Amino acid sequence: MDTLHLAEHMRTLGHQARAAAALMARAPAASRNRALTALARRLRDNTPALQTENARDLEQAHAAGLAAPMVDRLKLGPQVLETCAQGCEQLAAMPDIIGEVLGLKQQPSGIRVGRMRVPIGVFGMVYESRPNVTVEAASLTIKSGNACILRGGSEAMASNQALARLVQQALAEAGLPPDAVQLVQTTDRAAVGQLIAMPEFVDLIIPRGGKGLIERVSRDARVPVIKHLDGNCHTYVDAPCDVAMAVKVADNAKTHKYSPCNASEGLLVARPVAAEFLPRIGAVYAAKGVEMRACPEALAILAAVAGAKLVPATEQDWSEEYLAPIISVKVVDGVDAAIAHINHYSSHHTDAILTTHHANAQRFLREVDSASVLVNASTRFADGFEYGLGAEIGISTDKLHARGPVGIEGLTSLKYVVLGEGEVRS
Amino acid sequence: MDTLHLAEHMRTLGHQARAAAALMARAPAASRNRALTALARRLRDNTPALQTENARDLEQAHAAGLAAPMVDRLKLGPQVLETCAQGCEQLAAMPDIIGEVLGLKQQPSGIRVGRMRVPIGVFGMVYESRPNVTVEAASLTIKSGNACILRGGSEAMASNQALARLVQQALAEAGLPPDAVQLVQTTDRAAVGQLIAMPEFVDLIIPRGGKGLIERVSRDARVPVIKHLDGNCHTYVDAPCDVAMAVKVADNAKTHKYSPCNASEGLLVARPVAAEFLPRIGAVYAAKGVEMRACPEALAILAAVAGAKLVPATEQDWSEEYLAPIISVKVVDGVDAAIAHINHYSSHHTDAILTTHHANAQRFLREVDSASVLVNASTRFADGFEYGLGAEIGISTDKLHARGPVGIEGLTSLKYVVLGEGEVRS
Repeated sequence: MDTLHLAEHMRTLGHQARAAAALMARAPAASRNRALTALARRLRDNTPALQTENARDLEQAHAAGLAAPMVDRLKLGPQVLETCAQGCEQLAAMPDIIGEVLGLKQQPSGIRVGRMRVPIGVFGMVYESRPNVTVEAASLTIKSGNACILRGGSEAMASNQALARLVQQALAEAGLPPDAVQLVQTTDRAAVGQLIAMPEFVDLIIPRGGKGLIERVSRDARVPVIKHLDGNCHTYVDAPCDVAMAVKVADNAKTHKYSPCNASEGLLVARPVAAEFLPRIGAVYAAKGVEMRACPEALAILAAVAGAKLVPATEQDWSEEYLAPIISVKVVDGVDAAIAHINHYSSHHTDAILTTHHANAQRFLREVDSASVLVNASTRFADGFEYGLGAEIGISTDKLHARGPVGIEGLTSLKYVVLGEGEVRS
Repeated sequence: MDTLHLAEHMRTLGHQARAAAALMARAPAASRNRALTALARRLRDNTPALQTENARDLEQAHAAGLAAPMVDRLKLGPQVLETCAQGCEQLAAMPDIIGEVLGLKQQPSGIRVGRMRVPIGVFGMVYESRPNVTVEAASLTIKSGNACILRGGSEAMASNQALARLVQQALAEAGLPPDAVQLVQTTDRAAVGQLIAMPEFVDLIIPRGGKGLIERVSRDARVPVIKHLDGNCHTYVDAPCDVAMAVKVADNAKTHKYSPCNASEGLLVARPVAAEFLPRIGAVYAAKGVEMRACPEALAILAAVAGAKLVPATEQDWSEEYLAPIISVKVVDGVDAAIAHINHYSSHHTDAILTTHHANAQRFLREVDSASVLVNASTRFADGFEYGLGAEIGISTDKLHARGPVGIEGLTSLKYVVLGEGEVRS
C-alpha cells in the first residue's frame, strides 16, 4: 500500500471505530457481557482452526530464523486459548462500572454534582508477537464499552486475523457493532505512525512491547499514551525486620520468575541487619545461580558464602533492568538512604520494604515515588489479577490518569453530571 | 539571555523544583495550611506595596498601547487581592486529601491492596495577563503538596514578581521550601519552549490563555498537558419541558456573562415546543440585544418577535465560540438529533438539557460526550467553585486524568499500596 492509500485506509478504520464507539457507549451491560461469553465459546469451538492459522505464523517464523523464545511467544496452544476463554468469562462475570455515578452531592446553589464513569471512546493498541494479547485487548474493550484498533506484530498476522474474526462474530451475535474491535490488516510499519497521529479518531494509545517500540510511540504520538517503560524494581530489607521472612520474600521477588517487569532487580539492605541477612539470602541466590553485583561492603560480607557468584557493582548496575538471574546488592544506612536510592535509580514501577517498624513502613509507602509500593510482600504481586482488577491491559509507569496495573477503570473517563431543578447562576 | 544560558537557567529552576517537591510531598498538612494562611495575611498586609508594583505594569501597558480589556485584566485592585486572600484561607480550611488511601481490600493471596493519593510532583503553568492567577496557582500547589514553575505574561512581570516574593516568604514562614513556587524571571519567549520539554524535572504542564497559546503548548510539550481549548456549550430545550423554566435557564446560560467559556453559544429546540418556546426566549434575547443566528425553521418563528436581531445561520455558526451577545439557534427533531448535533459540533466542554422527561434526561447524561453534562441547570455552573472543588486551576476538555473543572484532586496521582505479612507469589 502506498502512503496515500495507507493513510486513507487508517482513516477509514478510524471513522468506523468512532461510529462503533458511540454504539458501544450506549449498549447495555447485558449485551457487552453476552459478547464476552460468546467469544469464550467461539474460542473453544474453534481451537483446531485457530491452531491451523497459528501454524502458518509458526512456520514463517521458523523459516525466517526467529529466535526460539520469540517463536515460543507466538504459540497459540489449547492451554493458552482456554486461558483466554476463561479470561473472557471472568470479565463477563465482573460488575459493570460504565454509567456508575460517584459522589453525587448537593451544592449551596441547589444543584447536585457527581461524576459519571463513561468509556473513553477509541483506543489504539500497538503490540508485538503474543497473539493472545489480541483477545485480552478485545475483551477489555468490550467490557469497558470502548472501541479499539489493534495493531499486532506482523509475525502473528494469521493468528491475529483468525482471532479478530471470532471477536467480530461474537460482537455481531450480541447485537453490537463488529467494528468495535478492528485489526490493522497491513504489515506496513507506517500504519503505526498513522494510528498514533489521528486525534480525531483515536483518544488513547497503549503500546505494549520492547522499550524501543514504546519510546518511538511516545515520542511520535499526537494523543495521550499509557506507557510502561522499564521495571527496575527494588526490595529494601530494613532494620529491624523479620530476617527469615525477608529471606523468603527477597528470594521470591528475584527468583520466582526472571523475565517479568515486577521481578526485583535491586536489593538494598540496612547496615544493622546486613551481617545477619546477607549470608542467608546470599546462600539462597548462590544455590539458584543468581549473580550478585554488590557494593564493597556487601561484597565483604558475601565473600564467605560458598559458591556465590560475586561481581563488584558499577554505577550502571543501579539502573539496570536485568530480566535475568542477576541482582544488584547494596548496603545502606537505613530507610532514608533506601528511599533516596530508590527515588533516584528506580523506574518508578514497583518497590518493596521488608520491615517490622511501623513508622519506617509508613514513610516508605508515602515517600517512594513508584506506581506500586509494598510492605512485607514480594514485588511480583504488582499485577492486575493479583490486585483484583480482573484483567490488565498493561502496567503504567506514568503518573497521570492510570498508574500501575491498568484494568477496566483505566479505559474509562469521569465526566461531571449536574442535576438541577431550573437553577441559574446569580 | 542567550539560548545556552536560558536552557541552563530553566534546568536550574527544574532542579530546585524537584528538590522542593520531595520536601512538599512529605510535609504535614498543618505546615501546608500554615503557609496558606500566612500568604493570605501577607497579601492583605502588602496591598499598597503590591499596587505600587502593579502600577508599573499598568503604566507600561498604557505606554505600549494595550487594548483596554487587556489592561483591565492586569489590574490588581484591593478587591482582587482580598478575593485572593480569601481563596487561600478557604483552601487552608479544606480537608487534606494527600495520603488518603482509597479502597483498601484484601485479595485471595492475603495481601491488602489500596490506592494512596500523592502529589504529582512538579507542574509548570503557562498563562497570560491576569496576575491573580499567580496566587491561585501557588495556593493550589501548596495545598496539593506539589511544586510548580510559573511562567506568567511578560506584561504582568512586576506584579507577578511581587506576588511570588510573598508566596516564597509564606512558604519559608511555615518551614516549607520557598522553591516550591518559582516564577520564571525572564520575558524571553523561548523559556516556554524549555519549560514544556524537561520531562526529567516537570511532570505536567497546564497552559491557561488564548487558543493560540494552548495549541502551541500542546503541540510542543514533551510532558502531559491538561488543556482547555474552547467552550462551544449548548442548551437543548427538550419536549416535553417546563417552558417557563427553560426560558429562565436559557436566558441565564447566554446572558449572565458573555465572556466565560461555560456560557452557552448554541440553543437547540425540540420541534414540538419550538412554537411556544422560541418567541418567549426570542423576546428576552431581543431585549438584551443578543443576536440570533438561526436555522430557517427558527427564523420563521422568530420573525414575529419585535426587535429581534436575526441572522441566517451558516454551517460555521454551529462550531463557533462567540464569547459575545450572539447565539446560534436550531430546531431539531428531538433528543436523538440534539445529542448527535452536540457530539458533532460541541467542544466537549459543557452541555445542558432542559426537560421533564426522565428517560431523555438519562440518555442525554449518558450519551453526550462532554466534560460536564447538566439537566435543568444553566451551563454557567460548570466551574470549580460551583462544583464544590474549593478552587480551580483550569477546566479540562481532555478525557484522561482530569476532565472538567480541575481542583486539588487533579494535581494528585493515585499509586498502589500493598500491605502484606510476608506473602510471596506462588
